Amino acid sequence: MHISPLIDRLIEALQVLPGVGPKSAQRMALAILRQNRTGGGRLADTLREAIEKVGYCRRCRTFSELEYCGICQDARRDRQTLCIVESSADIFAIEHAGGYRGTYFVLHGRLSPIDGIGPDALGLDALAELVGGGGIEEVILATNPTVEGEATAHYITEILRHTDVRLSRIAHGVPLGGELEYVDGGTIVHALMGRRRIGGAD
Amino acid sequence: MHISPLIDRLIEALQVLPGVGPKSAQRMALAILRQNRTGGGRLADTLREAIEKVGYCRRCRTFSELEYCGICQDARRDRQTLCIVESSADIFAIEHAGGYRGTYFVLHGRLSPIDGIGPDALGLDALAELVGGGGIEEVILATNPTVEGEATAHYITEILRHTDVRLSRIAHGVPLGGELEYVDGGTIVHALMGRRRIGGAD
Repeated sequence: MHISPLIDRLIEALQVLPGVGPKSAQRMALAILRQNRTGGGRLADTLREAIEKVGYCRRCRTFSELEYCGICQDARRDRQTLCIVESSADIFAIEHAGGYRGTYFVLHGRLSPIDGIGPDALGLDALAELVGGGGIEEVILATNPTVEGEATAHYITEILRHTDVRLSRIAHGVPLGGELEYVDGGTIVHALMGRRRIGGAD
Repeated sequence: MHISPLIDRLIEALQVLPGVGPKSAQRMALAILRQNRTGGGRLADTLREAIEKVGYCRRCRTFSELEYCGICQDARRDRQTLCIVESSADIFAIEHAGGYRGTYFVLHGRLSPIDGIGPDALGLDALAELVGGGGIEEVILATNPTVEGEATAHYITEILRHTDVRLSRIAHGVPLGGELEYVDGGTIVHALMGRRRIGGAD
């Protein structure tokens, strides 16, 4: 069926969005044409602008259209604490959770020799330079608890071993609201090994 | 959190898409920036082009950037049969199912006095003119089996009553693969009333 070549192209183009297949792309295309061309036009313009202007923050490497991102520019943030994450999405998650007042460093990936992702691609030189430049007291490794995330954390530990910063790893264990019965074995092992003393005899 | 005002605007803009909330909009924005700026640029351009160029087919009123849509232009389609649907999405569904070789007429809605949608908004003048112009033998009413869809079908029946076209309504009943046990009562009533004789004594 070729009702409209242009709508076909729009349905095709919408499928670059993650989680959008042919069926939902069709629904999106027709919905925009029918009820919200203004909003669709704003989306087209904003998308074009973001693709052209968004680069990387010079300090933390997160996506930013400015030389320094909003967090690195913010004088109220604690610049002595640096949290290393795999992606900008992780920053969104931590910021959304609230409570963290330090700054970040984004790897945009994790070590994965099989995919050809080595230390260079993750900006580890820039990280060593940033930490070596002084002023940072603690580096929190918040890569994901996957094989590659752990290997990346381990590699960074090696790089920073001879500096005088404190290194820490985020805790892994039973999630809040989770029930032991339904948590996977690896998480339980982590939770037991990472147990904290809460009182009793010395 | 204001990491990047431009990314915030992109996340906001993506939410014009049906079924996209803040969380998936964020995922979409970051995924495009990270891995597919080329595809994102194509989406921006195609969306802008579609919004500006897509209008309505002069014969059937479906969305089309051409004066006549692909179906109305197609000489192999049976122009004596006209299927009336509520939306362009319905055409996609019928074409995808295959088997129908006639043409269409799109109402872009259904009668809904409460929302101020009357016969004018549905192009019923254009429909009467098209049918009155001759050459059409059968009009199939394929509005949805909702209260408003039925009212719309009824209204169109009244309009076309005095022409010499054959009027029909698509069948409503138990869907293929459906089980009586799980089908709603209204559908069962329709299925019984619309029963067809398959043999036996005259």
